[in-house]
Amino acid sequence: MKPLHHPRAEDLSIYAVLHALAEPARMTIVRRLVEADGKPCGTFGINLSKSTLSAHFKVLREAGIIRQEVAAGNSRVNTLRREELDARFPGLLDSIVHAVEQSEPALPPV
Amino acid sequence: MKPLHHPRAEDLSIYAVLHALAEPARMTIVRRLVEADGKPCGTFGINLSKSTLSAHFKVLREAGIIRQEVAAGNSRVNTLRREELDARFPGLLDSIVHAVEQSEPALPPV
Repeated sequence: MKPLHHPRAEDLSIYAVLHALAEPARMTIVRRLVEADGKPCGTFGINLSKSTLSAHFKVLREAGIIRQEVAAGNSRVNTLRREELDARFPGLLDSIVHAVEQSEPALPPV
Repeated sequence: MKPLHHPRAEDLSIYAVLHALAEPARMTIVRRLVEADGKPCGTFGINLSKSTLSAHFKVLREAGIIRQEVAAGNSRVNTLRREELDARFPGLLDSIVHAVEQSEPALPPV
């Protein structure tokens, strides 16, 4: 199976990153990965169809926020590209996640 | 003339703020206001039609990022709602503007 495309850290666009994070389901995915990194797509506790969820993962991957690797049984394991993001845009991810956590309730356990 | 609608600081949505900033012309407007606050719409040095530019100002206003006040001759003067934004989402605006400044050339003088 062809590996999925991931942009290089130096090619990340601040606009693509902001756009990707400007959506509640995608933000929930990121918050879940901040809690516990390396999660298969089906384990995020988000009540959306598989295809909608896949589209959200793809937006995050193409913005360079997450890495998706194909694991056993063709499932995809998602990790946050935190070091690369922090190196490219210092403090950005933390301040956004912090702003969300201040204005929304904590995520329920999954 | 009816004053323009501005959301209350406590009603600002992090998603609306991120969406508003995820667009280069709107980000340029914000960067210009960081440089020199209180500017009429026609003074931002952005090469877009008046109607397109108006739409961008509206997105920023409705997200709570800028305040628009009607001045002499029906022009609109724009100010950044920095204190309210910083109180609601500490560090957010600075980290986003900083990320943009690191990845893009400085704005030319207007």
